[in-house]
Amino acid sequence: MSEIEIPDIVIRRLPLYARELGLLAGEGRDFISSQELGHRLGVTPAQIRKDLSYFGRFGKRGRGYEVLGLRERLRSILGLNGRVKEMVLVGVGQLGRAVLGYGGFRLGGFEVVRVFDSDPNQIGRKVDNHQVDDVATLPEYLQKTRVSMGIVAVPAEAAPSVIDTLVDGGVRAILSYAPVTMSVPHGVRLRQIDPVMELESMAYYLEEPFDGYIEDHQADVTTN
Amino acid sequence: MSEIEIPDIVIRRLPLYARELGLLAGEGRDFISSQELGHRLGVTPAQIRKDLSYFGRFGKRGRGYEVLGLRERLRSILGLNGRVKEMVLVGVGQLGRAVLGYGGFRLGGFEVVRVFDSDPNQIGRKVDNHQVDDVATLPEYLQKTRVSMGIVAVPAEAAPSVIDTLVDGGVRAILSYAPVTMSVPHGVRLRQIDPVMELESMAYYLEEPFDGYIEDHQADVTTN
Repeated sequence: MSEIEIPDIVIRRLPLYARELGLLAGEGRDFISSQELGHRLGVTPAQIRKDLSYFGRFGKRGRGYEVLGLRERLRSILGLNGRVKEMVLVGVGQLGRAVLGYGGFRLGGFEVVRVFDSDPNQIGRKVDNHQVDDVATLPEYLQKTRVSMGIVAVPAEAAPSVIDTLVDGGVRAILSYAPVTMSVPHGVRLRQIDPVMELESMAYYLEEPFDGYIEDHQADVTTN
Repeated sequence: MSEIEIPDIVIRRLPLYARELGLLAGEGRDFISSQELGHRLGVTPAQIRKDLSYFGRFGKRGRGYEVLGLRERLRSILGLNGRVKEMVLVGVGQLGRAVLGYGGFRLGGFEVVRVFDSDPNQIGRKVDNHQVDDVATLPEYLQKTRVSMGIVAVPAEAAPSVIDTLVDGGVRAILSYAPVTMSVPHGVRLRQIDPVMELESMAYYLEEPFDGYIEDHQADVTTN
């Protein structure tokens, strides 16, 4: 593995750590041990130390990690200390509206700056203070603005073409609420929120009378 | 690793394979090679063969995998060939309503059989043909019915107590739309749908001028 190649699974845990450190800061904690942080997150302390070791040396012997300092460091590693990350949202059906209504994006430093749909009955309407634009104007908009993140909340059958449009427009991080299995160019991230696939993989464990593998349990907490 | 311990990450890929095989069957395909399946999914053929090897020998030399046969086998490994999997839904706000309106659950063999909320303005109402019950009656309901899956669509601050209630009631697979970082007993699966954490981890890659690691790209497709 080259020095700059850090496993995606590690990158995926950083936001979990940063979020928990934020909660700890809110509780007035200044320092926390990898043991306690691990316990709160259902991750082994060794895992936390190994993950962080990719990015440097953290923690003071005997005192643990400096809560706010580590959180800020993690957020800057993730590129989250800069200005708000702008996103386009494609699809303003029931799901798209739930997405627009979800306060977590704003709190997390992400903002839907433009909303698109293909439904003539939606185009031109105001939804949650956003005027819905015709998805046909999406390429032009992306060309103009270089927004790098997009959220796809369209029906499954419409998702691939929407994702292609986003990719062609230079969007490099795409979160799809529609189940899609498609390849995107390297350098482009496509993640899908697929509740059914989560349920399907969890169903496997319902077959077991009991499952005591702490590793599995942790994987659940950390890979989502 | 004991014989019965299969990495959770492998279990998580099975639904992806099963789904793609279903699409292939719909296209009238009888057989597919691990190469083509891998190309369609953005997974290496070797990864597919290794994943499947946990469950037996599949595929005929020169012909590849029998599409419908492998799909059925994967679905039965996941425990999805039996009757519909019943779920309770807690929270019928905008998100909960989107969940209820999402047709994918029914198609995937999952059904919301009962809906709960704590809001007096929601309790007793009909939402998408479900009468909303008081969440205070959830323990009693679970005790009576032994439903093993639950979906949590409540605000973040309410999620931990709802999840505790589900766990105490014997629910062993919980999908939370609220960001929660909490431990659950072994044998219980807790997965969270957290769009912000997905965005946060994708933001890391936006810092890079370009990223050509096919492994990373594949991780995106396969770990969601």
